[in-house]
Amino acid sequence: MTRYKLTIEYDGTPFVGWQWQDNGLSVQEVLEQAIEKLCGQKVKTYCAGRTDAGVHAKGQVAHFDLPQPFDVYRLRAGLNYYLKPHPIAVLRVEEKDENFHARFSAIERRYLYRIITRPAPLVLDKNLAWHITQNLNVQAMHEAAQILVGRHDFTTFRASSCQANSPIRTIDKLAVTQHYHEIQIIVHARSFLHHQVRNIVGSLKLVGEGKWTAQDIKTALVACDRKAGGPTAPAAGLYLTDVLYEDD
Amino acid sequence: MTRYKLTIEYDGTPFVGWQWQDNGLSVQEVLEQAIEKLCGQKVKTYCAGRTDAGVHAKGQVAHFDLPQPFDVYRLRAGLNYYLKPHPIAVLRVEEKDENFHARFSAIERRYLYRIITRPAPLVLDKNLAWHITQNLNVQAMHEAAQILVGRHDFTTFRASSCQANSPIRTIDKLAVTQHYHEIQIIVHARSFLHHQVRNIVGSLKLVGEGKWTAQDIKTALVACDRKAGGPTAPAAGLYLTDVLYEDD
Repeated sequence: MTRYKLTIEYDGTPFVGWQWQDNGLSVQEVLEQAIEKLCGQKVKTYCAGRTDAGVHAKGQVAHFDLPQPFDVYRLRAGLNYYLKPHPIAVLRVEEKDENFHARFSAIERRYLYRIITRPAPLVLDKNLAWHITQNLNVQAMHEAAQILVGRHDFTTFRASSCQANSPIRTIDKLAVTQHYHEIQIIVHARSFLHHQVRNIVGSLKLVGEGKWTAQDIKTALVACDRKAGGPTAPAAGLYLTDVLYEDD
Repeated sequence: MTRYKLTIEYDGTPFVGWQWQDNGLSVQEVLEQAIEKLCGQKVKTYCAGRTDAGVHAKGQVAHFDLPQPFDVYRLRAGLNYYLKPHPIAVLRVEEKDENFHARFSAIERRYLYRIITRPAPLVLDKNLAWHITQNLNVQAMHEAAQILVGRHDFTTFRASSCQANSPIRTIDKLAVTQHYHEIQIIVHARSFLHHQVRNIVGSLKLVGEGKWTAQDIKTALVACDRKAGGPTAPAAGLYLTDVLYEDD
């Protein structure tokens, strides 16, 4: 068996999410079918972050095993051929030993959340950002965000359906920056709870609007209650950008 | 009569270009129909730069006249309502006096050309950049580009169908920069010849590949012959980003 690590970009708009679902097409299904068409082998893929419906990836990582060795450049070109016309592209293929696991070997995941603030609807960034018509106070958002950095019980910011054993997570970085009409929120952590980034962004937006203060973020966090948090930000603004491993 | 200046964003992919054509839908047609639906008035719009099929705009400027005054915020909201579902949005509406002309009053036009260099096909930037599979020497491209800055006869870089009276133009800025896998070429000039930016980019790409030197750019320029220039770069990478006016 040879293990292959894939780095993948996708536009999440047409998909029900990463994972196979009965109610529509998933990234995993399209990818596993492309592998089967190319290699004549039914395989199971494992990914670093199971993105939800509408969430994008610039650097999702997945792995799978093949009984026969395959040239990594031929694998990339062949998979991209069979992935068309779906908005999924394999950026990189690497051979790994059997100790590598896309999900369990990851030591850091990085997400980007894009907000565009302007009155006019989005055109070039349609489905690729959260459209908010009023300006937000980005400095207030960044300052409030720093309360969430570090090791905390993130029950307030996890989906009620989240299946993780523990609500404790450690956020290594949470930065809010502005570039003209675009606000970028960057979050780094070893791992995340379900909807954690979108729930944090939904609360930071309340701070940006002046409806919440940094103290309200703190109060919400310590409440350890999803109902104490802000709304969930839309999927369209979220990107899984990088997954880091020990040997990177 | 009241004159209105519009600043417009569009994804050029589905359009035959800015201008009305018999063979498909144009930005101008969709915009003029939206104005008619909102204001009950058939109008003619004039734009700053007649972009070709597939070329995008982040800041196209157009103007038109209405017999009755119209609140600029209602005009923006109403036009954006009627422009849906087409990928066109009106970013800003301003009232101007009759001396303002979107095309003739412009003192500078700014274009951006995006190239993405990577083996994998484009997904998130599909139709929004020129996809080139090999790396390019960006420093060599930038240095060669400086030969084209200033006032020159740009016959080599104009479409053979170009209808401008004179091939003389003045490029104020031509900068090639790199951000990870994305190369951005920014060009500023009072006005441009037909296909001028795309023909310049096509030649600079040859420099980036090492097939041409800066001297070859100079030789091509002084030849004053379209056949001496490189190929025309694809429309998908080109954006009209800004149009500047005396009173800005």
